[in-house]
Amino acid sequence: MGFKAVRGDVIHAVSKDELRIHPDSYIVSDGGSIIGIFREIPESFGGIEMIDHEGCLVMPGFTDLHTHGPQYANLGLGLDMELLSWLEARTFPEEMRFADMDYADRIYRLFVRDMVREGTLNAVVFGTVFTESTIHLMEILESSGIRAYAGKVNMDRNTVKGMTEDTDRSLAATEELIRRFEGSDRVRPILTPRFIPTCSDHLLEGLGRLAKRYGTPVQSHLNETLSEIEWVKELYPDSGSYAGIYGSFGLFGQTPTIMAHCIHNSEGELRMMKSENFFAAHCPDSNSNLASGIMPLRKFLDLGIKVGIGSDISGGDTLSIRQCMVSAIKCSKLKHAEADRKLLPVTLTEVFYLATKGGGEFFGKTGSFEEGFELDCIVVDDRELHPAGLPGVEERLEKYIYCGTWKNIIARYVRGNPVDPEKAMETRA
Amino acid sequence: MGFKAVRGDVIHAVSKDELRIHPDSYIVSDGGSIIGIFREIPESFGGIEMIDHEGCLVMPGFTDLHTHGPQYANLGLGLDMELLSWLEARTFPEEMRFADMDYADRIYRLFVRDMVREGTLNAVVFGTVFTESTIHLMEILESSGIRAYAGKVNMDRNTVKGMTEDTDRSLAATEELIRRFEGSDRVRPILTPRFIPTCSDHLLEGLGRLAKRYGTPVQSHLNETLSEIEWVKELYPDSGSYAGIYGSFGLFGQTPTIMAHCIHNSEGELRMMKSENFFAAHCPDSNSNLASGIMPLRKFLDLGIKVGIGSDISGGDTLSIRQCMVSAIKCSKLKHAEADRKLLPVTLTEVFYLATKGGGEFFGKTGSFEEGFELDCIVVDDRELHPAGLPGVEERLEKYIYCGTWKNIIARYVRGNPVDPEKAMETRA
Repeated sequence: MGFKAVRGDVIHAVSKDELRIHPDSYIVSDGGSIIGIFREIPESFGGIEMIDHEGCLVMPGFTDLHTHGPQYANLGLGLDMELLSWLEARTFPEEMRFADMDYADRIYRLFVRDMVREGTLNAVVFGTVFTESTIHLMEILESSGIRAYAGKVNMDRNTVKGMTEDTDRSLAATEELIRRFEGSDRVRPILTPRFIPTCSDHLLEGLGRLAKRYGTPVQSHLNETLSEIEWVKELYPDSGSYAGIYGSFGLFGQTPTIMAHCIHNSEGELRMMKSENFFAAHCPDSNSNLASGIMPLRKFLDLGIKVGIGSDISGGDTLSIRQCMVSAIKCSKLKHAEADRKLLPVTLTEVFYLATKGGGEFFGKTGSFEEGFELDCIVVDDRELHPAGLPGVEERLEKYIYCGTWKNIIARYVRGNPVDPEKAMETRA
Repeated sequence: MGFKAVRGDVIHAVSKDELRIHPDSYIVSDGGSIIGIFREIPESFGGIEMIDHEGCLVMPGFTDLHTHGPQYANLGLGLDMELLSWLEARTFPEEMRFADMDYADRIYRLFVRDMVREGTLNAVVFGTVFTESTIHLMEILESSGIRAYAGKVNMDRNTVKGMTEDTDRSLAATEELIRRFEGSDRVRPILTPRFIPTCSDHLLEGLGRLAKRYGTPVQSHLNETLSEIEWVKELYPDSGSYAGIYGSFGLFGQTPTIMAHCIHNSEGELRMMKSENFFAAHCPDSNSNLASGIMPLRKFLDLGIKVGIGSDISGGDTLSIRQCMVSAIKCSKLKHAEADRKLLPVTLTEVFYLATKGGGEFFGKTGSFEEGFELDCIVVDDRELHPAGLPGVEERLEKYIYCGTWKNIIARYVRGNPVDPEKAMETRA
């Protein structure tokens, strides 16, 4: 791999409080990772491969830290319900269809294409209980060129017929899937117990063992709604906390762990979350749609808990992390205004950080343009958003986040290689 | 005018609790108003002019009950601020520019075009203090083919240099504008005191007199933020309520009145709002962006207060009333989850009603397809939203509201006449 440079109006966040802006500059990489950002390309790089996007915004691609591929056809449907009734009436019946490989192929391709269109370059995805179609989802993700973790869902109780797994078979299939993707690089497996109510102790124990044996990361749901939390309490009357149940099975921070939602947390749970392998996936649109409440994001930031943004479709109504960023800001303002004046609203810089470097940390060195990071970026042609003239780069970022669409994204790169959303639609020969 | 029929999958709301759905049907009008909806065109209408949108959704166009044309260039900018600082830093400086007719022409044309693109067929618009450019805004609205009320803003204190009006001149200009549009039909004037803090008693008295003399309706802002309410209390320490101040000047229900926001209301104010000429403009995106809080929409509906939806750009970040409907639902759910469990979330049917017939009532018989209503509608080609196959009409409405874009709208009609968004961009010869 040779040296490569991307030219444009460069903007990225290196921390939740610091945007870095480089008007008309060059991000230079050695083909693998970034060397630096330069106003002019140093002469020593003569003959470097140049990707010229002069006049466009160049920013890190987005990380979607929590989403459900098989719910894509349900996007924007059935949203007058709360979580538990919505799962039963809408979600489980739809996920059942993913036993059918033709249907799975059709929906997963659209899901991946549309996610990549929206500028997501790193995604953590729930599949279904069906192993074969989950593997197919991973293949489509792989061929799309982005980075992803994807998981076969495990559930062996309190679900519907046809999706209630035999515990041992669920574990065996999960292990098989882990082994199959062992050497893989961009698309990797993640353990995916749906949530405590649908997993027996035996299943959770087995998943904890797999996490330990293979070092596999974990994703699940935590403290989303009050009725779900009540249910968990009924199932584990002696447990100190919802998070503690995952923890007791080796599924909460022992390996890198993502828990979606984290709305209604005890102080003890927040302390558990500070353990270094924990990531909260904040999914504001889903939390609004299902009337679950607003995660106290400011508290998480103040405590230094790792947070990323999740679209959580189809609890969420959009695959766009750009749109979810706007929702995260709005939700933090409404939390402040309606529930707790002490929790100050989050800023654009803060959520931009969360949507790029913050969530990206789950994948490694992606989501910022610092030295040593991978050359992952999206290119935004925002001229049509400014018919009255271009403002500064920071204002252009804000305008794009609030008013842009996926059509403003004219190019995407992972490790300096172009990523084409339409790739996901190509059927293998 | 001859008889005219529009064919498609027809859906409209006749009350907040009742959707009416007519798959593949014909809305028949006598050229002026609607006669009925038919599965097949009765033979007696032989030779009727047919507008065929088979396979598309046909629904009422949207009413935007509160928006600010001169803030359009600021859309999606400066949203890390609260109302009063945002007014000072962002809004007033931008509105100042509308003394320049060239600038006003450019921005107002884009504003009107983009609003019409989004399917808004009735709009209630704030201009600026500048009379000439406000008249120009009204001309552009007129030429676009939609219905609108637009107002020259009045303010004579507590604002910035260059926008502080001489009271008598402000009143004279307002009266001149009313007279100029006296005979007009689609685009009419509305009295527009910005809000209590920027209007002297003398100005408010004068506007009350104009309202009475000409029967002119009124628009303003009410109970948006706590700091604004504090300010009003300081200005009128002896007043019982914010709403009462408007009322004491003849500007609260004496003629048809729209008050935007209405977030923090006393019980007494809610009682005042039940008076028959009052409309609340609910602007959920603006209220979120400026951290103002969430209007208790459920309470308004239960009390039978008239409500419509407002985009309130650029406090709001979108001109799309479709998007504002989604935000209204989400906000009602968050109010329920975070502040008051007794206030139940609103449903899609409820906000669809508010965005069509509810707000439309301010204009007369628009916003539904009942007999005697005007033939105002938008046509939505939603096939691309359903790659896995078309569901029923009600689900198609939900999907379009949550996931559609303005590009799904392929036609717009007011009184059966096609409305072309690009008309707004045409400069007169």
